[in-house]
Amino acid sequence: MEANAVLDLMWIVICGILVFFMQAGFTLVETGFTRSKNAGNIIMKNIMDLCIGSIGFWAIGYTVMYGESIGSFIGSPTLFFDDVENMHNLFFQTVFAATAATIVSGAVAGRTKFSTYIIFSFIMTVVIYPISGHWVWQGDGWLTELGFVDFAGSTVVHSVGGWAALVGAILVGPRLGKYTNGKSNAIPGHNLLIGALGIFILWLGWFGFNAGSELAISGDSANAVAGIVITTNLAAAAGAFTAMVVSWVKYGKPDISMTLNGALAGLVAITAGCAAVSPMGAFIIGIIGGAVVVLSIDFIDKTLKVDDPVGAVSVHGVCGAIGTLLVGVFATDGGLLYGGGFSLLGVQAIGVLAIGAWAAGTAFIVLYILKKTIGLRVSKEEEVDGLDIHEHKSNVYN
Amino acid sequence: MEANAVLDLMWIVICGILVFFMQAGFTLVETGFTRSKNAGNIIMKNIMDLCIGSIGFWAIGYTVMYGESIGSFIGSPTLFFDDVENMHNLFFQTVFAATAATIVSGAVAGRTKFSTYIIFSFIMTVVIYPISGHWVWQGDGWLTELGFVDFAGSTVVHSVGGWAALVGAILVGPRLGKYTNGKSNAIPGHNLLIGALGIFILWLGWFGFNAGSELAISGDSANAVAGIVITTNLAAAAGAFTAMVVSWVKYGKPDISMTLNGALAGLVAITAGCAAVSPMGAFIIGIIGGAVVVLSIDFIDKTLKVDDPVGAVSVHGVCGAIGTLLVGVFATDGGLLYGGGFSLLGVQAIGVLAIGAWAAGTAFIVLYILKKTIGLRVSKEEEVDGLDIHEHKSNVYN
Amino acid sequence: MEANAVLDLMWIVICGILVFFMQAGFTLVETGFTRSKNAGNIIMKNIMDLCIGSIGFWAIGYTVMYGESIGSFIGSPTLFFDDVENMHNLFFQTVFAATAATIVSGAVAGRTKFSTYIIFSFIMTVVIYPISGHWVWQGDGWLTELGFVDFAGSTVVHSVGGWAALVGAILVGPRLGKYTNGKSNAIPGHNLLIGALGIFILWLGWFGFNAGSELAISGDSANAVAGIVITTNLAAAAGAFTAMVVSWVKYGKPDISMTLNGALAGLVAITAGCAAVSPMGAFIIGIIGGAVVVLSIDFIDKTLKVDDPVGAVSVHGVCGAIGTLLVGVFATDGGLLYGGGFSLLGVQAIGVLAIGAWAAGTAFIVLYILKKTIGLRVSKEEEVDGLDIHEHKSNVYN
Repeated sequence: MEANAVLDLMWIVICGILVFFMQAGFTLVETGFTRSKNAGNIIMKNIMDLCIGSIGFWAIGYTVMYGESIGSFIGSPTLFFDDVENMHNLFFQTVFAATAATIVSGAVAGRTKFSTYIIFSFIMTVVIYPISGHWVWQGDGWLTELGFVDFAGSTVVHSVGGWAALVGAILVGPRLGKYTNGKSNAIPGHNLLIGALGIFILWLGWFGFNAGSELAISGDSANAVAGIVITTNLAAAAGAFTAMVVSWVKYGKPDISMTLNGALAGLVAITAGCAAVSPMGAFIIGIIGGAVVVLSIDFIDKTLKVDDPVGAVSVHGVCGAIGTLLVGVFATDGGLLYGGGFSLLGVQAIGVLAIGAWAAGTAFIVLYILKKTIGLRVSKEEEVDGLDIHEHKSNVYN
Repeated sequence: MEANAVLDLMWIVICGILVFFMQAGFTLVETGFTRSKNAGNIIMKNIMDLCIGSIGFWAIGYTVMYGESIGSFIGSPTLFFDDVENMHNLFFQTVFAATAATIVSGAVAGRTKFSTYIIFSFIMTVVIYPISGHWVWQGDGWLTELGFVDFAGSTVVHSVGGWAALVGAILVGPRLGKYTNGKSNAIPGHNLLIGALGIFILWLGWFGFNAGSELAISGDSANAVAGIVITTNLAAAAGAFTAMVVSWVKYGKPDISMTLNGALAGLVAITAGCAAVSPMGAFIIGIIGGAVVVLSIDFIDKTLKVDDPVGAVSVHGVCGAIGTLLVGVFATDGGLLYGGGFSLLGVQAIGVLAIGAWAAGTAFIVLYILKKTIGLRVSKEEEVDGLDIHEHKSNVYN
Repeated sequence: MEANAVLDLMWIVICGILVFFMQAGFTLVETGFTRSKNAGNIIMKNIMDLCIGSIGFWAIGYTVMYGESIGSFIGSPTLFFDDVENMHNLFFQTVFAATAATIVSGAVAGRTKFSTYIIFSFIMTVVIYPISGHWVWQGDGWLTELGFVDFAGSTVVHSVGGWAALVGAILVGPRLGKYTNGKSNAIPGHNLLIGALGIFILWLGWFGFNAGSELAISGDSANAVAGIVITTNLAAAAGAFTAMVVSWVKYGKPDISMTLNGALAGLVAITAGCAAVSPMGAFIIGIIGGAVVVLSIDFIDKTLKVDDPVGAVSVHGVCGAIGTLLVGVFATDGGLLYGGGFSLLGVQAIGVLAIGAWAAGTAFIVLYILKKTIGLRVSKEEEVDGLDIHEHKSNVYN
């Protein structure tokens, strides 16, 4: 293989390793932001998302997504992918699939049956995620043909996870004691320092997530990669800073959880357009993400009364959708602000809606069937005592 | 230096940095899986393994391992390695040496004298590990000449650490209260979340450990590197999943610690054959590793009654040996399943036994002398109160 | 872009990502080494250092440092840097700027107003740090012209942070209860395991910090990069080992905090000379750093009676200055030991003093104005209860 091709492969492998590490970040954020009695259950769900994702995407998911297109809708699946010239691509896509699945675990934390969850995680990885992913990233998908832009997956990965998370949170219902007399009660996380470490790890991994999605670094891709690192970092910084300011104004003090979620909101929002917008565009997208996430978390919690313990729906679903739409505004080639008119914005809206409907619809069907058969939720006693002791006969802390 | 050579050097440096970070993973796994009163002592042992390894391998260990061969048994040592064209190799091999040493610390946690431990760590790094390593990796060693295959060190690194750990655990004896009336009492770890983070960090570092052992990425090595990343990841995933299932069947619930150790078991098992087997072979090796580690931890704890607080002997010794043997079964070039007959399997068995005997034998001699001179074990009072307060006048938590 | 240029850009991006992660390390060290009631405030300060640094350095700081030189003193500032061919340089320099700012937060932990801190952090990032940085790293600065050597920033980054931290710690005053009847009372950190993880992350990131400062890896830079990785690692190992020995002799037991700080001391000390000294030189510099940091922490705490909760002044200020001076002794090209005479040592001393005066002086002016206007310090009640509950209406642990 000649040097430029080696550079590209190496870059994809390194970025895949960074994205892999995001699983640790998700585990820490979700455990840190919830109660200690369910921490072990969250560890197990996140580890299994990674294991099932790794096995399932190799076994079939990768070709469901990237196999030869059948009607611009789904790839031609083959079993146990073993093309030795594409192992780097399998790896990079595997860790993306695991990310989509793991987003759901946060929204249903603290009351969901472990066995049900891992069945859902498998279906998410080999059916739900790769099919809509095929529409955008395989090359012959119907959204690609429309001109839809989602460079690194604000919609393909994050919104898919976020909308499935919303359906999951609704179907499984709120945690006991979360809503009493129509009032939302705060259930604080048990370790925000661990949560903060998780945010740093996610931010770190996101450089791989976004800049690796260039799928190359040689030639003209080099400056593109560096530009993506900057847009990614600026949006995260702007998101955290803005969420801090908004929480300061709204609650009187700069809130820790909101600031941390603001960084994620900026990261999710910039993911679609990280290669298409200028640093200034990224900065503004981050600001919008950081402001929206505070309002959205409040709205989902207090108005919709959907119990999403870590704000996964707002961070990944809402900010993923908004970030995808904003590509239609800020893209330096085709965006509204740069004289592109409403055409790109319209296509972005179609993609957001179509994939949102797909993710929410399929998640609903799967979770509804699981609810009516093996059940979604643990017993009241198990929930009160904590999932760790009943589902795993273990305590995380001794 | 021309671009391909730069690519190779860069890859070795990056992988070395990832392997370096495994020291953090070991520290978190060992502290998380044991009691809080000894956490500081474990931190100090792991930091010192790294410091002593870094200094000792530079001062002499590297040339004991990689110097010109004396009788296919040992390298010609020179002091203070300073060949400016091989600093990347020194770095990569240094972090491997530190790994071998640090495996022992987990098995003897909670009752071993700190001063004795650091003397042993030094001998491990500059004598025990590099001599058997010379047999396999220097190029002219006697096991290399036999055709023994241990690509990244299931035996050279992990089993050497594992068998030394077994000898250490036997010689130092079980923790107070571990065995009463012939019954093994569980002594649960104090923070499984920290342990889980440690597993994620080790899994992350293992991509560097295995894929860096290609010692190149240019030309034909590029696809080999990507293949190794996939076999490594699949074996880890299969190991964790299998250990979860086995624990579920055996104990009635999916066990957190066993699942986490299953990931490590898969990783240790695939290390020898990561470049020699197919993804399917790696998947099966991971399954075997994940199943064996649960049974082995139980067997060593309850039948052999050897107190190994973190399961280091099972994870590194047993799974390292089995993974090395399975190369003789699954290697696509020379393995039993692929028509190679028993010859490679036989050579693998010779290597596993020879290095096992070397590691256990030399560790026994060194530790026995230390036991009879300065002593291996802290006093009963120190053990009951915790090593942190007596050995370091500190508490980790305040 | 041709392959060698891609290699260089890729290396800078990867190293920048590693340096980025150091922010997580600083957060963990500072929270772990201090009390739990202020952990959230420290998280917020560190996140904001990164956010403000990312935004501020892009907005103006980068060109203050690297813009065309005005009188060898300051760069020509332009707003919102967007040269698409230098995004990798912007990124790498941004994470350096964030590091300089964040050093201060440790020294003023536990009693400083959040709003005041973030104003200071902004001024640090866009004025104080980039101006003195211009003198050394822009190419036309007056210290560059004198021949001053600070390869990766022992002085440019660490001492600047360290001296500003000293001024901050003096102006804000000691924590309540730190000094009673002229005696210094130890206020132990709440989680040394988290602190230890922070040290591992910092050590990891330092490979990017030092080896990335080569700003290239192609051609002759390849062996230089590998050499830097070795000098960096040896100095860290020697620093930790020496600090352990010195604490053992001084206090009777090997101290955990001192050993961890010893690793940082070695890292800070080698940063200036990592590309200029031999492995043996690095080893000796690490030993000196590790010994000095123990004595300096004691001296500042007990003799000067300046309350620096995490030892930031000793680690970054004192060891940064000493490491810079030692380049004049150990540099293989121009150092005292290698026949260079006192000329380089003299230049190093000028640089250390000039930048020390600049950092301390400007930090004093800014902090003094802030003290007399909005105030530096929280109320007694807020300090006793903890900053988290008053400044952020949150607890980190629940």
